[in-house]
Amino acid sequence: MRWNGWGDPAQATDLPLAVRTLLPLLLGRTRRPADAVELADVTVAPSALTAHDLDVFGRAVGFAQVDVTHEARIRHAGGRSTPDLLRRRAAEQRVPDAVLRPGTHDEVTAVLTAAAELDVAVIPFGGGTSVVGALDPDRGAHRAVVSLDLRRLSGLINLDPVSGDAVLAAGTTGPEAEGLLSAHGFELGHYPQSFRYATIGGFAAARSSGQNSAGYGRFDTMVTGIRVATPTGDLELGRSPGSAAGPDLIRVFLGSEGIFGVITEVRVRVHPLPQQRILESWSIPDFATGAEALRHVAQSATGPTVIRLSDEAETAVSLAQLGKIGKVLAKGASIVTVYEGDDIAHRRARTAEILRAAGGSSSGETDAEAWLDGRFDGPYLRDSLLDAGVFCETLETATVWAGLSGLRDAVTSVIKDGFAAEAGAKSFVMCHISHIYPTGASLYFTILAGVRGDQLAVWEKVKSAVNDAILAAGGTISHHHAIGRDHAPWLAQEIGETGVRILSAIKRELDPRGILNPGAVIAMDRAGRTD
Amino acid sequence: MRWNGWGDPAQATDLPLAVRTLLPLLLGRTRRPADAVELADVTVAPSALTAHDLDVFGRAVGFAQVDVTHEARIRHAGGRSTPDLLRRRAAEQRVPDAVLRPGTHDEVTAVLTAAAELDVAVIPFGGGTSVVGALDPDRGAHRAVVSLDLRRLSGLINLDPVSGDAVLAAGTTGPEAEGLLSAHGFELGHYPQSFRYATIGGFAAARSSGQNSAGYGRFDTMVTGIRVATPTGDLELGRSPGSAAGPDLIRVFLGSEGIFGVITEVRVRVHPLPQQRILESWSIPDFATGAEALRHVAQSATGPTVIRLSDEAETAVSLAQLGKIGKVLAKGASIVTVYEGDDIAHRRARTAEILRAAGGSSSGETDAEAWLDGRFDGPYLRDSLLDAGVFCETLETATVWAGLSGLRDAVTSVIKDGFAAEAGAKSFVMCHISHIYPTGASLYFTILAGVRGDQLAVWEKVKSAVNDAILAAGGTISHHHAIGRDHAPWLAQEIGETGVRILSAIKRELDPRGILNPGAVIAMDRAGRTD
Repeated sequence: MRWNGWGDPAQATDLPLAVRTLLPLLLGRTRRPADAVELADVTVAPSALTAHDLDVFGRAVGFAQVDVTHEARIRHAGGRSTPDLLRRRAAEQRVPDAVLRPGTHDEVTAVLTAAAELDVAVIPFGGGTSVVGALDPDRGAHRAVVSLDLRRLSGLINLDPVSGDAVLAAGTTGPEAEGLLSAHGFELGHYPQSFRYATIGGFAAARSSGQNSAGYGRFDTMVTGIRVATPTGDLELGRSPGSAAGPDLIRVFLGSEGIFGVITEVRVRVHPLPQQRILESWSIPDFATGAEALRHVAQSATGPTVIRLSDEAETAVSLAQLGKIGKVLAKGASIVTVYEGDDIAHRRARTAEILRAAGGSSSGETDAEAWLDGRFDGPYLRDSLLDAGVFCETLETATVWAGLSGLRDAVTSVIKDGFAAEAGAKSFVMCHISHIYPTGASLYFTILAGVRGDQLAVWEKVKSAVNDAILAAGGTISHHHAIGRDHAPWLAQEIGETGVRILSAIKRELDPRGILNPGAVIAMDRAGRTD
Repeated sequence: MRWNGWGDPAQATDLPLAVRTLLPLLLGRTRRPADAVELADVTVAPSALTAHDLDVFGRAVGFAQVDVTHEARIRHAGGRSTPDLLRRRAAEQRVPDAVLRPGTHDEVTAVLTAAAELDVAVIPFGGGTSVVGALDPDRGAHRAVVSLDLRRLSGLINLDPVSGDAVLAAGTTGPEAEGLLSAHGFELGHYPQSFRYATIGGFAAARSSGQNSAGYGRFDTMVTGIRVATPTGDLELGRSPGSAAGPDLIRVFLGSEGIFGVITEVRVRVHPLPQQRILESWSIPDFATGAEALRHVAQSATGPTVIRLSDEAETAVSLAQLGKIGKVLAKGASIVTVYEGDDIAHRRARTAEILRAAGGSSSGETDAEAWLDGRFDGPYLRDSLLDAGVFCETLETATVWAGLSGLRDAVTSVIKDGFAAEAGAKSFVMCHISHIYPTGASLYFTILAGVRGDQLAVWEKVKSAVNDAILAAGGTISHHHAIGRDHAPWLAQEIGETGVRILSAIKRELDPRGILNPGAVIAMDRAGRTD
């Protein structure tokens, strides 16, 4: 992974000509930023760890797995939000004091015990793809902070092919997991945009949702068990697929982003590798009509594996990328559908019937294929836009069907008004629905803005206003990106003061020294108030 | 509801002749117990509440809603397990010191605040159908104990027909909820055996699962939001159907059986009333073959609304009840399927294909209709058996498909050996699968035993051995009956000591005086240890 951008540098793509043509029209002229700093030239503070600390951690994970090199510390300085990437362009950067790489559950436990004794904060680190500040090297009230890189906890620990139940080590990446499972004829089927780098433990800790969620569910519905190391004891949860044995404590850890403990193993439901696939894209008059059609699909359970509705703006830009800019004005909104597995012709027919009845027309498989081919490449495009001086970021929310249009309108207005007011900047806001439920759906926004000044400062203000607007309009503060540090100040508005007290009580019980990911999920001032 | 048995006395049924013929063959001669005591003749201790207590509670809920009558106290003395019913036959009974009937969320809050100040324990009480001791009037370390009867919190508070999302007051019973929803063309579709009496809040608090779970899911998957009153603050949870806004705190309350707070409103996913229904029953050679077929149905998602597999013993007795005892030996195991809603012919065809391939043969709709007609009547039969001196009880568990046969064998052996060893008694054990998941299924046991001595004491020993056996064989201590007091001593084996610490920490935070349902879920000695 590029240290200051996305993915494999060899895969980086230039902006398509059509997009480069569009951008000045949409956003006005932008200013190309200064060249990115080289990793070797970044200045960081010396590690705050003492020789004694390093000795204790070395005994916990093996001395070869305590990494205080300049490069390792910088590579663990944060996640992959746009603010993260903008911070990676600075000459001076805040980084963890060391990177520790445990290879077993017991080594994780040993690190947590040692860190609590040494008064050192620990930031669990999987694929490094958080976009909500969950990986910021915040030491909180502690002496120092280490990044706990979990990628050595990798592999398929167990597969029960009869039950379709697999145990994966938490540091296994998406492609590694699918590779290991496919050797036995199985698939997990969880494909978020971060798939190529993110880890199974990270999917669990962040309540991820993937592009095939219509078919296989959110990641939290795939999890059948977890193993967790905490500073004060271990947990193994999930004896049975259906249970009434008290509250489901797995759910305490899904979405906890490492503040209660470190997930070291995840048991997941898997299914046989699908042998068949149908792809089909659709044009539909407008976003509202498309949303209504998706609601019928969800409530009738017609069974698409993937269904996505792009609004008029996103449809236009996608078409521009595909070199079909001439068609833009004619197209309205667009839908991509994918059907995999059993009974796909019937599922496609039932879904298609609803889309056609709503005024949709099938445009064949070409556009859906293009989406499928490029579905993990969005972040590369962001790198190119940032290099061109265009601010680019995404955000997401969800709500009930009845509130979806109002929420979309509210968020769009606040973004446009925010960039105009804070930076006199034009912005372009695209939206899609990519996760549907019987009672509601997600909204995913992609934002381009022609911000010529301090992009980080402007975005902080716009994003803050967006968070307020989402909550005011009845949306959730995050559908699948999670809370991290970026959303923490808004969490109390979503779950109430009593909800935050519950989280704080669990944290005090499991992590009484407060070393685990301080400031994530529970905002720092609240953690301080309750500790 | 009968105070010392199930349901409407007018609906009570005698044992069918065929069953009366079978029983001595299966269990030997039993001894008809002494006639049941009359309610008016039961002796109870005087209420421990003082005039001051009654005044404070009267101000909280209205003086007309503070009930210290003999009848009300006895009617709130417990739930509807067989041990509960055997206790209702005693001359002296332990009962709560009063029954309080709040009519609003705020009145619930007022009761909890008052009870904490007065040092009085509170047992939340919905339909009174717990079969795991969740309603025992245990005062714990407190001065007195009141039953908090929630049935006045009744009604449809809101219906969002676009999103298919309804808010019901927690004390609404199953039939009341379905009646209110059907007036608007909607259905919840949650039909546990307790349906006629149990409440929406009880379904949530106990993580109920109903007979249509294959189609509409467990109750916990239907819940989209809750409102909770606790002694130290309120909660309103569930903004969005999909969210990554930290851990899903709704799940902390589902299965909490009133130990953290009182659920006062439940938001649930609802669906349009199904317009079509297909019923079909099947014969299948044996239970193992049937279980394998159900696994394929679950893993292929063919879409039955109901699918149940009765083993050979349950099939034989069901046929005996239907007066077809002559056919018994030829029948093996049996399956009931129901399809409701859209696309049912296709769903039936796909399911039938699997059942036929497994050696099943359709036996038409008659047996399925008989099951549907009698599906809430099992508890009436138990009353008749108890009156005839036959011990009768049910228990349930679940595990992954690969472990299901081993778990069934282990439980069956321990029951048979237990009754033989503890009471020299013959027993007859029936089992069915009624809830299927991609990775596993439930097992529901119905037990008859010819216990001539102290049925309560014998059962306590047998049940204890069964709980040990379930956990040793990888099952969950409860699939949908919950924990209550009866299963509490086994919970730590299921969720670990660290899991119990999490529950205790949440309880300390929300209910620092420990007034809520003391001894339920978290066993009394453990609560003491952590308080």
